Amino acid sequence: MPEHTPDISETGRCTECNGADSLLATLVGSGVEVCFANPGTSEMHFVSALDRIPGMRGVLCLFEGVATGAADGYARMTGKPACTLLHLGPGFANGMANLHNARKGSSPVVNIVGDHATYHVRFDAPLTSNVEGFAEAISHWVRRPRSSRTVAVDAAEAVRAARMSPGQVATLILPADTAWLPAERPAPALEIPGPAPVFPDAVEAAARALTNGKKTAILMRGSVLHGEGLNAAGCVAAKTGATLFCDTFTTRMRSGAGAPVVERLPYRGKHVLARLDEFEQLLLVGGEPPVSFFAYPGQESWLTPPHCAILTLAHPAEDGNTALLDLAAAVSASPDCVLYPLDPPALPGDGPLTAEAAMRTVAALLPDDAVIADEGITSSLPHANMLATAAPHDYLSLTGGAIGSILPLSTGAAVGAPDRKVVCLVGDGSAMYTVQALWTQARENLDVVTVVYANRSYAVLNHELKLVRAASTGDKALSLLDLHDPALDWVRIAEGMGVEAVRAETTKSFADALRSALSAKGPRLIEAVI
Amino acid sequence: MPEHTPDISETGRCTECNGADSLLATLVGSGVEVCFANPGTSEMHFVSALDRIPGMRGVLCLFEGVATGAADGYARMTGKPACTLLHLGPGFANGMANLHNARKGSSPVVNIVGDHATYHVRFDAPLTSNVEGFAEAISHWVRRPRSSRTVAVDAAEAVRAARMSPGQVATLILPADTAWLPAERPAPALEIPGPAPVFPDAVEAAARALTNGKKTAILMRGSVLHGEGLNAAGCVAAKTGATLFCDTFTTRMRSGAGAPVVERLPYRGKHVLARLDEFEQLLLVGGEPPVSFFAYPGQESWLTPPHCAILTLAHPAEDGNTALLDLAAAVSASPDCVLYPLDPPALPGDGPLTAEAAMRTVAALLPDDAVIADEGITSSLPHANMLATAAPHDYLSLTGGAIGSILPLSTGAAVGAPDRKVVCLVGDGSAMYTVQALWTQARENLDVVTVVYANRSYAVLNHELKLVRAASTGDKALSLLDLHDPALDWVRIAEGMGVEAVRAETTKSFADALRSALSAKGPRLIEAVI
Repeated sequence: MPEHTPDISETGRCTECNGADSLLATLVGSGVEVCFANPGTSEMHFVSALDRIPGMRGVLCLFEGVATGAADGYARMTGKPACTLLHLGPGFANGMANLHNARKGSSPVVNIVGDHATYHVRFDAPLTSNVEGFAEAISHWVRRPRSSRTVAVDAAEAVRAARMSPGQVATLILPADTAWLPAERPAPALEIPGPAPVFPDAVEAAARALTNGKKTAILMRGSVLHGEGLNAAGCVAAKTGATLFCDTFTTRMRSGAGAPVVERLPYRGKHVLARLDEFEQLLLVGGEPPVSFFAYPGQESWLTPPHCAILTLAHPAEDGNTALLDLAAAVSASPDCVLYPLDPPALPGDGPLTAEAAMRTVAALLPDDAVIADEGITSSLPHANMLATAAPHDYLSLTGGAIGSILPLSTGAAVGAPDRKVVCLVGDGSAMYTVQALWTQARENLDVVTVVYANRSYAVLNHELKLVRAASTGDKALSLLDLHDPALDWVRIAEGMGVEAVRAETTKSFADALRSALSAKGPRLIEAVI
Repeated sequence: MPEHTPDISETGRCTECNGADSLLATLVGSGVEVCFANPGTSEMHFVSALDRIPGMRGVLCLFEGVATGAADGYARMTGKPACTLLHLGPGFANGMANLHNARKGSSPVVNIVGDHATYHVRFDAPLTSNVEGFAEAISHWVRRPRSSRTVAVDAAEAVRAARMSPGQVATLILPADTAWLPAERPAPALEIPGPAPVFPDAVEAAARALTNGKKTAILMRGSVLHGEGLNAAGCVAAKTGATLFCDTFTTRMRSGAGAPVVERLPYRGKHVLARLDEFEQLLLVGGEPPVSFFAYPGQESWLTPPHCAILTLAHPAEDGNTALLDLAAAVSASPDCVLYPLDPPALPGDGPLTAEAAMRTVAALLPDDAVIADEGITSSLPHANMLATAAPHDYLSLTGGAIGSILPLSTGAAVGAPDRKVVCLVGDGSAMYTVQALWTQARENLDVVTVVYANRSYAVLNHELKLVRAASTGDKALSLLDLHDPALDWVRIAEGMGVEAVRAETTKSFADALRSALSAKGPRLIEAVI
């Protein structure tokens, strides 16, 4: 096959371009700058195009769940989509769990999934699969270009689909021949519609509710938690006495000194019901009323108390930030009311390391403007309130509940925010699902400190098993939740993938290790034995 | 919730049983004895039932792709399904790539996928997903029980669906309340229909073709490669001069001394076409005509030469073993014609380790009746013909082309064949996808020796990239195929998961390491630096 050297002129015409060239140029022109890739044979023309079309950074991932989780993390920090490059149906399938998390967190992601050439599908070769079936089960938008001459337009539409407010998963299935056959030009970037404006009536109704003397909870989700809207909500709360809440798991939230205090709803449904019992009104901004994470026999799924009225200020696709600014004005809240001082907790005294002491140490030593990515469901999450007075930071967590998101998420967050320290907090069970992310952190020298809480258990499940059975449970059931035998050695695992690592068993050694890791540049891992 | 103690009487009635108890008792009664599990909250009643209902071995896997790949390997060695236990849609998704391999290899697998309680789905909690969409895209059979009282019957049908000839993927979606609500009794095992008998006409037609003087290739797939049919095919070949072939990738094939020589079709389509060019007739036993693994510009997808007539002795669901025995009789082949002596290659002389020397060493040292699981696409597969005169063994490979199958496959094969040594040959790129399998091997003390060929590259893709571009390729493309920076340290990775490991860089050190690993009992890993 002859070498081709595409030339994209200023008029946008493309000489000697194939479909892959036109696709890549369109993605770059539409603002997609990073590709988290685990390619295969059917993606080789796309890979080859990376050397001809400037502007796309390729980041190799050794498992597809790392690629999709990293795209989610990148989107959370930049507000725009990266693309993934995945190999046919099974490669896409390996990325689906973290696409589920991205979908539930409204992160924009553009997946490029290679497939067999259009004419090859009917031969049912070993890697032939129902790619559309896989893709449609998890994506908001799916398309399979019919020709190399339409790939560019389809790619521009994929980017627009991903960026539709509040953020979507878009999947472009790329038959190999639509990548290698000729194309004419890249497609121009499409205009991205902003979030829908909120009805003025909704702001007025919310303002009336907040001043009617009833006790009000404000539950926020999505981009309103990033900063501007959050600060306005803090002013509204200060003025009206309302209480600010967020979901148990948030896509990204500004937290720490300078940000208003937002109370995280508890994980368990009955605790949510108990916490909300005092409220007469629930005002929703960008989200839905709370529901139970799982169902349990005899317990409620719907967690708004019967006596609590529900009002919606902004639906997820609407402009909640402007709505909160308007609401602050409507209740005459001071626009610069909020100023919480920096007051991190003191370091714990020496002793055996506990989950609480570890989080206290993180809160004490956290550098300014860090990013915390938290999937320590039983270890860090219960103590996350210690971060409220720590240095200002962004806090990311497990939006879709599919564990195994956070090492990839940290990887992508570090690519998207290269000047900020990323601190990843994760249980040992969770960390194993997508442990290959450590290699990409080493390869790209990403500034991520990973703390693995080595409790050597699916700890959350031990509790769940107790909920199922009142009396003692036998060995066979318990053995399916226990990670002691053998104990995972996280220092060796991390070093095996090129990440410097150390084990800490006391509060002092943990503080030393964390201080050292935070002062270095590049990936580090600490096994926190608790 | 009160403790319940189910009692299953001899009449099959079940006192104090819940749906999970009735499900588990039905699975055990239907011959399912092993559960490869990665459970979550919604599966806790199933997990708890393991302590009350005897007969099911639970094997914990730290990633779902390990569970499904292990179920595939178990089925290949035992001919019967294990079940997997997976956590909602994302957990199922993580197992889909290896279910794809199982599907393409016709391995029977029963997936139990927990889901939210029936009444909880409408609340769209974080882990709510389109489980049916996921499952239907990859399974032959899918069902969601409507009630705890039907779970048992549905489970019996799932097992029957999995065992339909030649083997299927059956997925039972288990809403949490159908597990925890009361059930009456387990369901009796259903009769499993055997493979359909082959038409006598087909045997006669094949016999006539084999004696008509034309040059004939016999292409076999499926259970005919296990032994009985294979030996008959060897006698037919010896009598008629036909040449025996198998697909590039086989589910399970008897190989080595005592088995007839079966030639593996080459990986690349143009090489298959060239190899088959001399044949005038292609006789199919249990499979389809060969097609190209991938499509390439200007190359054929269909690989039977135009001058070669295609005959089918047995379709995949038919009884190819009996058909081959009948065919041997029809051509008057001696039923005990085949006896190849043991003649393994000599050990290579000392020197830097190469892929060829490594395979020569494996063939030389292979113990009797071992199981070889091979996913060394560029490292071991090209030299697999050296195994033809090695000690008798079963040979498993990558049926669906979704790399990342073989560490899990070896794990399940070792569970299914506990008295045999499993030798797993795998490239470093492949091994990373489902590296968590090593932990399960250590946990269960499985007798698996894993050889990781550390070429530090997606080697097959470097070749594919060259096929795409005639001239030299730039750094960005190459960097997406290269695993040097940082190099994976497989000794540390394996030790981190509890598996003893050693690195070999010379032929002598590799032979020493392999000899030592083969003489031990339990999992070992050798990093073969080539």
